[in-house]
Amino acid sequence: NATAKAELGRATWKLLHTMASRYPVIPTQDERAAMKQWIFLLSRLYPCGECAEHFQQMLKEHPPQTSSRAALSDWSCSVHNIVNARLGKKEFDCRTLSDVYKCGC
Amino acid sequence: NATAKAELGRATWKLLHTMASRYPVIPTQDERAAMKQWIFLLSRLYPCGECAEHFQQMLKEHPPQTSSRAALSDWSCSVHNIVNARLGKKEFDCRTLSDVYKCGC
Ligand SMILES: Cc1cc2nc3c(=O)[nH]c(=O)nc-3n(C[C@H](O)[C@H](O)[C@H](O)COP(=O)(O)OP(=O)(O)OC[C@H]3O[C@@H](n4cnc5c(N)ncnc54)[C@H](O)[C@@H]3O)c2cc1C
Ligand SMILES: Cc1cc2nc3c(=O)[nH]c(=O)nc-3n(C[C@H](O)[C@H](O)[C@H](O)COP(=O)(O)OP(=O)(O)OC[C@H]3O[C@@H](n4cnc5c(N)ncnc54)[C@H](O)[C@@H]3O)c2cc1C
Repeated sequence: NATAKAELGRATWKLLHTMASRYPVIPTQDERAAMKQWIFLLSRLYPCGECAEHFQQMLKEHPPQTSSRAALSDWSCSVHNIVNARLGKKEFDCRTLSDVYKCGC
Repeated sequence: NATAKAELGRATWKLLHTMASRYPVIPTQDERAAMKQWIFLLSRLYPCGECAEHFQQMLKEHPPQTSSRAALSDWSCSVHNIVNARLGKKEFDCRTLSDVYKCGC
C-alpha cells in the first residue's frame, strides 16, 4: 500500500540525510568504506522491491560520494532529487539542507 | 536537541522493523551476512553519539539474529524494548509486530 511505502521512504531519507549531516568533515579511509558499504547494503536490503531496484540502478549511475561531509550531503540531496523527479515531486533546494537536518546530538 | 533525536530514532526504528518484516523467511548465507553487516555499520554511523554507543554495547550483548525473518523481527523488537526500558518507555508487545510493520510493496 502506498501510505506504508511513503512512510518508509520518508523514514529512510531522514536517516540518510541526518547521517550525511553528521558524517566527518574529513573522513578516514575506513569511515569512507563503512559509509559506502552501508549505502550499498541498504540498496540491497531496502524493503520495497521496486524502490530497491531503482536505488541500485541509481547507485551505478551516481556512486556515493564519501570524500567529505559536504560531498556526501550533496550526493544524498541529489539522489533524493532524482527520485523526486521520477515521482513528479518538486526539486529540493540543496542549499537549504543544513537548516533542515539536525540530529540533536 | 531532543526533538531531532526522537525523530531520528523513530525513522530508524521504522526502517529496521520494516526491513525485518520483509527479510527472507529463510535467508541465504549471503543475505544473512548482508543484514548483519548493515546493522553493525548502522551502529557505527548512527548520527547520535550517545545512542551509537548504547547501540554498539547492545549489539555485543545481543548480537543480531539473522537466521530467519521471524528471528530478525523478534530480535529487532527485543532490542527496541531494551532502549524503551532505558528511556522509561512502555514495553511493546512483540506479538503485534506484524500488524504494525507493513511496507506496501
Ligand atoms: C532510496 C529510495 C528509493 C525510493 N524509490 C521509490 C520508488 O521507486 N517509487 C516510490 O513510489 N517511492 C520511492 N521511494 C519513496 C519516495 O522517495 C518518498 O519517500 C515517498 O514518496 C514519500 O514522499 P514525501 O513527499 O513524503 O517526501 P520524501 O521524498 O520522503 O522526503 C521527505 C522530506 O525530505 C525533504 N526533502 C525532499 N527532497 C529532498 C532532497 N533532495 N534532499 C534532502 N531533503 C529532501 C523534504 O522536507 C521532504 O518532506 C524511495 C525512497 C528511497 C529512500
Ligand atoms: C539504535 C537506537 C538507539 C537509540 N538510543 C537512544 C539513546 O541512547 N537515548 C535516547 O534518548 N534515544 C535513543 N534512541 C531514540 C529512541 O529509541 C526513540 O526513537 C525516541 O526516543 C522516540 O521515541 P518514541 O516514543 O517516539 O517511539 P520510538 O521508540 O521511536 O518507537 C517508534 C514506534 O515504534 C513502535 N515500537 C515501540 N517499541 C517497539 C518495539 N519494541 N518493537 C517494534 N516497534 C516498537 C511504536 O509504535 C512506537 O511509536 C535510539 C534509537 C535507536 C534507533
